[in-house]
Parts: sequence; C-alpha cells; structure tokens
Amino acid sequence: MTGPLADVRLVEVSAFIAAPSGGMTLAQLGADVIRIDPIGGNIDIARWPLAPDGTSLYWASLNKAKRSVCLALNTPQGQELARALICAPGEDAGTLLTNLPGSGWMDYDTLAKQRADLIMLRLIGSSDGTAAIDYTVNSATGFPLATGRGGEPVNHVLPAWDVAAGLYLATGFLAADRARRRTGRGQEITLALSDVALATVSSLGYLADVRVNGVVRPPMGNDLYGAFGRDFLLKDGRRIMLCAISNRQWRAIDKATGLTERLAMIGPLMDVDMGTEGGRFAARHAICAVLEPWFAARTLPEVRAAFEGSGVLWGSYQDFRQLVEEDPRASTANPIFAEVEQPGVGRLLANTVPLRFDLGQRPPMPAPRLGEHTEVVLTELLGLSSAQYGKLHDTGVVAGPGAQGRR
Amino acid sequence: MTGPLADVRLVEVSAFIAAPSGGMTLAQLGADVIRIDPIGGNIDIARWPLAPDGTSLYWASLNKAKRSVCLALNTPQGQELARALICAPGEDAGTLLTNLPGSGWMDYDTLAKQRADLIMLRLIGSSDGTAAIDYTVNSATGFPLATGRGGEPVNHVLPAWDVAAGLYLATGFLAADRARRRTGRGQEITLALSDVALATVSSLGYLADVRVNGVVRPPMGNDLYGAFGRDFLLKDGRRIMLCAISNRQWRAIDKATGLTERLAMIGPLMDVDMGTEGGRFAARHAICAVLEPWFAARTLPEVRAAFEGSGVLWGSYQDFRQLVEEDPRASTANPIFAEVEQPGVGRLLANTVPLRFDLGQRPPMPAPRLGEHTEVVLTELLGLSSAQYGKLHDTGVVAGPGAQGRR
Repeated sequence: MTGPLADVRLVEVSAFIAAPSGGMTLAQLGADVIRIDPIGGNIDIARWPLAPDGTSLYWASLNKAKRSVCLALNTPQGQELARALICAPGEDAGTLLTNLPGSGWMDYDTLAKQRADLIMLRLIGSSDGTAAIDYTVNSATGFPLATGRGGEPVNHVLPAWDVAAGLYLATGFLAADRARRRTGRGQEITLALSDVALATVSSLGYLADVRVNGVVRPPMGNDLYGAFGRDFLLKDGRRIMLCAISNRQWRAIDKATGLTERLAMIGPLMDVDMGTEGGRFAARHAICAVLEPWFAARTLPEVRAAFEGSGVLWGSYQDFRQLVEEDPRASTANPIFAEVEQPGVGRLLANTVPLRFDLGQRPPMPAPRLGEHTEVVLTELLGLSSAQYGKLHDTGVVAGPGAQGRR
Repeated sequence: MTGPLADVRLVEVSAFIAAPSGGMTLAQLGADVIRIDPIGGNIDIARWPLAPDGTSLYWASLNKAKRSVCLALNTPQGQELARALICAPGEDAGTLLTNLPGSGWMDYDTLAKQRADLIMLRLIGSSDGTAAIDYTVNSATGFPLATGRGGEPVNHVLPAWDVAAGLYLATGFLAADRARRRTGRGQEITLALSDVALATVSSLGYLADVRVNGVVRPPMGNDLYGAFGRDFLLKDGRRIMLCAISNRQWRAIDKATGLTERLAMIGPLMDVDMGTEGGRFAARHAICAVLEPWFAARTLPEVRAAFEGSGVLWGSYQDFRQLVEEDPRASTANPIFAEVEQPGVGRLLANTVPLRFDLGQRPPMPAPRLGEHTEVVLTELLGLSSAQYGKLHDTGVVAGPGAQGRR
C-alpha cells in the first residue's frame, strides 16, 4: 500500500454520502479503511443509480479503496466483534468514523473502556439534535433562494454540504491523530451537517453582508457577483461561461473579441469606472449586450480558437455525457483517473483524490464487494483461526461476499 | 493558542477563496497561519461585499484567525524575507500554501535549497494548465445543466469547488505533514481546481451512470433523485423541503399529515411498490399532488407544530436575512459562532470550524488587519532587531497595518 497515510488504519460504520466520502478520502490517501456493514448491507447498499445487475453505482463510487466487513450488528456477538476491530491495537489505528447511532454499543465511553486513546468522529444532522440531510440543511442556508432567476427556490443538485462534510471529517481525523501522537490522548469529534453549511455561509461573507449592510444577495441568474461574468449562448447551441476577475483578464476579452472600441464606450455610457471589478459588475448588462452578438455568431470550436492562448478566462458548459465523452480531463489521460474492474459492474473509470503528491500515492481503486474482506480482516486483526471464523459464519454472526441485500 | 494543531506553523501566499479558506481551516484548528501579502494587499483585498468604510467583508470572512504580514514581493529583498519565513526552522513548520505563481522565487526547488523537508501545497486552475476559477470549472461538471427545470444552465451560487478545494488543501497538508514526520521528507502537492470538481462528479456516481447505463441525469427542479423529496409552498408564502430516504421517514410523513389512507392508494394507482425508495421516486408527482393541498392550507408555524417530534425529515427555506435573524443555529447560541471585533467593520459574528473537539479548540477569531503582524512575525521568526525592522520599513520592503490599498 502506498500514499502519505499508508500506515493508518480506521474503521467506518456509515451510510449515504458524507461519512463514506470522508472515509474514502482517507483510503485514497493510503489508509486502510475498514467499512463495517450489517449483513446484507446498510441502508445505502442499493441506492440509485444502479448497474443493470442491480449493483449500486452510488455505493460503488463512494466506497472505493476501502475494505468491507459484514457483521450481524444487531447481535451482541456482532457488536463485540465490531468493537474489537475498532479498538484493535496499533499506534496508527484506534479510530472510528460513523454517522450512525450505535444504540449504545458504540458510544465513545463504551469504546474507550477498550481503548483509552480512541479517536471517534461522529457526523450528525442538525446541531439542534434533529435529523437533517443535505437537502434539508441546504434549504436553511439562503443559497436556494439566491440561485436561478428568483420567484422560487432552486436547489443545487451537487450535494455540496455532504461533500464538504466528508472533507471536514478527513481533516478532523488527521488533526486529532496529530494531537494524539503528541499527547497520547484520543477524543470524540462531533460534526453537524448543519454546522458545515452555516460555517461556510459565514466564511463566504453572506452573514456579514446582512449584519453590516442589511443586504440580502438577490438571485442574479448566472451572473458573477462583484465582478464581470456570465454565460453566453453560441451559434451551435452550446454555451460558455465567461469571467474576468482581474484587469488583465478583462483586457484579454477586449482583445480576443476585437470589441475594444465598443467596450470602451460602456464606461461613459453607464457612468462607471470600467477599470474596476465593481464598475464592470455594475455595467454587466451593457457589457453582455455588446458581447452577445459576438458569441451568437460563433460555434464552440470557433470560440475555442479565438480564445486559445489569449488569457481569456472561460469554460464551456457540458452535460454529464459530454464530460465523459469529450473532456480529456475526465479520462485516463488524467492520472487521477484509471480504468478498474468494479465487481458487479465491469470496467469502470475510477478516481483517486485530486491531490497529487510528488512522493507518490495510491492509484485509483475499485470499491470492494460487500463483505469481501470479512474473513481476512477478522483473521488479521483479531487473530481468529479458520475454524473460529467458520463457526461465526455458520451461526450468522459474520458474512463474506455474496450476501448483499436488494432493497 | 489552543486546538489540535496548536504547534503547527505555515505560510500562505494566496488570494480569493480556495487557498485562503484552506489556510483558514488550519488556523481555526489552532495552527499559526501567516498570510504574506504584497504591500497594499493582494488582488482580493477589496473584493465585494464591502463594509461602509471600504473594508472587504469577503476578505475578512475568509482570513479569520490568521496573522498578516506585508512584504514588497516584487523586490528581491521582499522575496528573500518571504523565503526566510517559509523556510524558518521548527519541526512543525516549513510549509507553504499558495495559489499564486511565484515567478520563480518561490518555486519548490528554490525553496527546498533553503529547507530540504519543505511541504508546498500549490493550487492551480485546470489540470490542462489553463486558468480556471470555480465558475469556469463548474460549467464543465454537468451540474448547471442538471440544475433547475432545464432549458438553460443554472449555476449554483455557492462556490462549492473552492470550498472543497480549501478542505482538500487542509487534508493534503496534514497527510503530507504526517508522512514527513515518519520519513523526514517533504514534498510538493499540486491540486487542480478542475480535478476537485471532476473527482467529485466521479465519486458521486455521475460518470459511472453515463458509462454503464448511458444515462444523463436530467434536471428535475427540486426533486430528490432516487427517493422521495421536494419543496412545498405554504399558506404564508414560506416554503419547506420535505424528504424521506428511509421507510421510517416515509411512514412519519403518512402519520404526521394524517393522509395515510390516501397515500396508500398511490401504490395501486401508479403501479409501484411504495415500500421502496425507487417506487416512491417513480410515484413522486402523485405523492406531491396529495401533499400539496395539505401544505397550502398551513403556515410555517403550523407545519412546525405538526412535524415536531414526528420523525419527519424536513427543513424550511430561509433567505440570508431569515437565516441571520431567525435561525438560532447561526447565532452565538451555537458555540461555533461568537461575536468578535473585526478591524474596520466593528462587532461581527465569526465562526470557527464546524468540527467540535472534545479536548477543546480555538474559539472564533476575527481576521487580522492587513500587515498587522509584519513586525512581530519578522522579529519572532527571523530575529530582526527593532532597528533592522525600522530600516526595512523605511525603505518600503515591509509594511505594517494602515497601508491597505483600495481597488
């Protein structure tokens, strides 16, 4: 095993997006991440989209590079085995990542009796103790009412708070692990999905704008706030996003479109200083009125040719198919991607973390089959003999691959 | 200083959102993060929104808990001082986080001559070497064409890729730091914003759905994919997001609305198994038709009362003002927030990381004034005398607070 976290081991008892993606990030960085599921799988095992044979592409995409262990977590014996795995010795082990209520058997205090320096990361929904998921947290943030053209809320489709929460869990583990190696002390770290969202809204200045200026940022379609940027429709029906967040980038648009003289008329026309981001933001409708016909007369290849090497800051809109079929950045031409054999699915493009480490890292890996590593992990970490494992298996306390439920 | 990273020190040379938020995350975890800017500030120093006196609320929100040093980075002496700060001794130091091209003077190889075990995190735009920001990366991901009701792309307003990139930078630093303490070796870590976005699209199963099933997820308004969830308009004009991602949550809606019998008719009506997520997703329009009048007849307080303690998974939509004025989770009732004195702005609600560490952490802190710590940092880390500092100041190589530019 390679990667900066090659000596780390942690146990994950999780479901859905946030906690599994946190564990996956650590696994992709080289850690041995053991995901423990109930026999048959947890609530996310058959989540859409599915492959033709019923294998969840959602689960397979969110649990790459992990090992999978299945235990009867609703029985005292299954819980005992899970606790033993979580608390197994090793100075780079002794960590549990979870977003599931453990019904007492995997509380921090219970586990700490077996391993005093345990690190436990616990993801919860809302900081007020109520249940919450990305959608019900997102509605509270203000973003849906500031997205689109107004009149009704627009949810973003990206589960952004889950994604951020997963990365906070990875960061939180590494911070607590660093402190543990200095002090010898473990701790419980709690992360509320609602706090992830509200801390982000605060960090981006939205709360301050309300507090200081009494201003609620209104929906502005695809316009960039505070500088120049918007989408444009091309002759061939494709669209592009065009931005300028510096004077240099603004002059590049001028030059690449050949519209310098006409764009220079906008300052006096709109009575703004076009040499500032704020001035260009205020004059954005006039700017777009001048640029629209230029884009409407050109195809995407023509725009690409005109902007190549020009310093213009732009990107084309792609749907998911165009991304897969046309963008080399989402192919094996990019080293963060590789073709892997995904059990139940076949050949699939898999990614590792986007971070590129000069000293090497773990290549993209498939997700395990559910229960694929039950026997090897119990043997390795708990020293079970083949006969002991067989007995647990025959009494239904553990399960290997092949016992996946379909919901 | 407190928090799990209280012994860590790193230098940041950055602008905009992603890299500064990565440094801020580490600072909020307790690290001494020294942001070095050119005299007068970097390109983000006056970014909107602004406070009445011109102070950027954007900058103040994204640079909390850091120390600020101003150097004439366009001069050999200023660059020399920056290199000395980056490479200053200490086993928990020797890290540079940047998203700016250093024009050679802060390349990894140049810096590694001064400190062989340097860790350098470098954020770039696109993996193909072109410039890119959140907007021009986002257009490529497929999400804008899957957001809203279709017909035109809808950009999400949240700079989600910048937020994720910041957290990857924090994670990447901690992973490389862990490896450095094991091996003694530093390294350069490169992160492309485009890779952050494309790795995420891949991790969420969108690429696999295209590859395996040939399916491009279409825009579906605010409907949840693969399970039941949508927004509803209430009698008082407010809106809520309602979801069920488990059978238990679905039955809770049944019970809390008293519509059990009528919702039970939908299975036969639409010929689906209403006991599955997929069945409820397929029948979502019929479900909404039954639920809409129930919500349209009730105000937000009435819905809140009906759902309290019911196990229904829901949240209300709030704009940024409602979030600030009505939601106690975005107030000092939540320990991740505190009132701080922000220079140039006054009393302000500031946040720390959403992670809550049982062993304690750094409280919410304001951002520094630009150049506030130039003298103390140069004195502390480089051992400059007061006279030496005075000379550098008088020759314009360094600047203390008060030299902030306005763009």
